[in-house]
Amino acid sequence: MSTAALEFWFDFASNYCYPAVMRVEALAAAQDVVVHWRPFLLGPVFRAMGRGEAPLFEHPAKGRYVWRDMERRCRLHGLPFRRPSVFPRRALLPMRIATLGVGQAWMGAFCRRAMHAAFALDREIDEDGAMRELLGDLGLPADRLIAAATDAGNKSALRARTDQALARGIFGAPMLLVGGEMFWGDDRLEEAVAWAARGGDDAGAS
Amino acid sequence: MSTAALEFWFDFASNYCYPAVMRVEALAAAQDVVVHWRPFLLGPVFRAMGRGEAPLFEHPAKGRYVWRDMERRCRLHGLPFRRPSVFPRRALLPMRIATLGVGQAWMGAFCRRAMHAAFALDREIDEDGAMRELLGDLGLPADRLIAAATDAGNKSALRARTDQALARGIFGAPMLLVGGEMFWGDDRLEEAVAWAARGGDDAGAS
Repeated sequence: MSTAALEFWFDFASNYCYPAVMRVEALAAAQDVVVHWRPFLLGPVFRAMGRGEAPLFEHPAKGRYVWRDMERRCRLHGLPFRRPSVFPRRALLPMRIATLGVGQAWMGAFCRRAMHAAFALDREIDEDGAMRELLGDLGLPADRLIAAATDAGNKSALRARTDQALARGIFGAPMLLVGGEMFWGDDRLEEAVAWAARGGDDAGAS
Repeated sequence: MSTAALEFWFDFASNYCYPAVMRVEALAAAQDVVVHWRPFLLGPVFRAMGRGEAPLFEHPAKGRYVWRDMERRCRLHGLPFRRPSVFPRRALLPMRIATLGVGQAWMGAFCRRAMHAAFALDREIDEDGAMRELLGDLGLPADRLIAAATDAGNKSALRARTDQALARGIFGAPMLLVGGEMFWGDDRLEEAVAWAARGGDDAGAS
């Protein structure tokens, strides 16, 4: 029985988290790697680092590049993509629901639907109505989950997770952790999963 | 006869240019793509963008990550790597020699040796002695080339190339251009070469 696992740190507000959220469970499952979802807020991390709220987009030429790169990468991965009309898009409510969903069977499907809404359909996701519809589509008790997500204890769980991200040196998203090893970005997903599957640095050499 | 080509914009001072310089010609040749070398100075580009001289390393956690990523990526590519004791390392003289080498048969071999010295051997490369030895090893007239490289006309050719980089929206390195399409980073090398080989976006669909 395999116990290979990776931690997947993400924020729905991050553009490169879109392809990573859509891909991570399927990639990991193919190599018997378990995904531990780690929703955290990227905004406070950027602020603690003295960066703006969307550092990739501070320089116009780089911002144009990132959107073009998103188009190309999504096409490579067979993912629909529509450039968001608002960026970064607020995602606090879905992030709180995701905090509630850690360890639940519906977590992966919820995260993929939230990201699909934001980056394929260009919809707002930080809204009760949008979340109620999305949770309902998954056959989940939307009202109860939204109430639990906005409960003080769950809010502080998300803040605590964000503090933990900072304490562990996480500086961006998506960030994949395998033990003490960090892999940053959708384009390191395959490498991180392979690392987890072979149980670290040298295990693959045998 | 294929006329597929890509422009490879690079600076020896950039860490991610190391694996890219080592790999680009072999990858491109395997798909009948011609590499046009485009040496430019990243420092003035960063300054024009209001960034520091080594933006990847401004935040300690991110800096640590980048070196670890370099170790892992170089190992994946079978490239020796030693973390430079000085970074960024000055590279003006080799960049001037590379400016002279554009279109010359020795360009690829020269670039790979300069990068090997900096990132595999942890050697200074912005020195007459180091360049004389390296050019000599390639069977080239070192004294004549160094004199030509530091000639006013060649110096201004490198400055002009750097201005051209800015004008074309280049914000980092390595940057690969295929027509108007930009690909940034060693981890986009395969994608850029494939794009060039199939002559653009949709040609591959046929």
